[in-house]
Amino acid sequence: MSPAPRDIAARTADALSALTAPAADAWVATASADGTPHLVPLTIAWHDERILLAVEGRSLTARNVVTSGRARLGIGPTRDVVVVDATLDRCVPVDDEPSLGDAYARQADWDPRGDDAYVFLVLRPVRIQAWRDVAELEGRTLMRDGLWLNSPTDAA
Amino acid sequence: MSPAPRDIAARTADALSALTAPAADAWVATASADGTPHLVPLTIAWHDERILLAVEGRSLTARNVVTSGRARLGIGPTRDVVVVDATLDRCVPVDDEPSLGDAYARQADWDPRGDDAYVFLVLRPVRIQAWRDVAELEGRTLMRDGLWLNSPTDAA
Repeated sequence: MSPAPRDIAARTADALSALTAPAADAWVATASADGTPHLVPLTIAWHDERILLAVEGRSLTARNVVTSGRARLGIGPTRDVVVVDATLDRCVPVDDEPSLGDAYARQADWDPRGDDAYVFLVLRPVRIQAWRDVAELEGRTLMRDGLWLNSPTDAA
Repeated sequence: MSPAPRDIAARTADALSALTAPAADAWVATASADGTPHLVPLTIAWHDERILLAVEGRSLTARNVVTSGRARLGIGPTRDVVVVDATLDRCVPVDDEPSLGDAYARQADWDPRGDDAYVFLVLRPVRIQAWRDVAELEGRTLMRDGLWLNSPTDAA
């Protein structure tokens, strides 16, 4: 027997916990223009309703996101997932916007600042879903078109 | 301090353990023809040097893989990963090849057989990489062009 499905308030709180956890990682899926999927684990930060990634500007992930404007992220173990569809807000050299570097270094367990090969990909979540098992597939959407369906008051 | 990087024999053994573990899941990245990334967690089975996925034939994952012929899978926690680039060997209704259904049901914790909406995606690994941290990025490639670099004798 599965436990009872969480309601949207609980899922939203859990999703924000996962997004804001120290040293949180995501599996980051992107695609090249010819439809080749790419997937790497990267450490994230949650800042100002955006997800920050720090990657080398020449990396395949950076090039795919800059070209397509899109990424899809999976956070959490595979049976307690948060899945985020995001669009690229902006791509910024890591030393250009102090607030980004501060937020990233505060949450992540490394700090890319000072390495001019690195950029922040500032991703805007458009859709966020969260589920644990088949019983939670219904009601898994927490954000749609960039708007929280549950309006969490604790969203940073 | 990181522990010493594993050698290729240890990484290959660990990767095969991850691929053959009971109820093993993967994050499965695919892309549509217009370059939109898709990513979902799915339970895998390792059979005859192939990775089996069981999905609804109408799912976005199935449609993307059948169209593009490609998937990239991430297995393991984000700091002990196995990453597999794979091509589609074949797409088979779940009741058509008993050896596939037997292998999937033996390793996975569910059995799709009897549901004619489901297909097995039989994926051929082309490249397999494994790493835990930055110190293991060097030497992360275990399979290239479909060939194990370490020729594991225990590969099923």
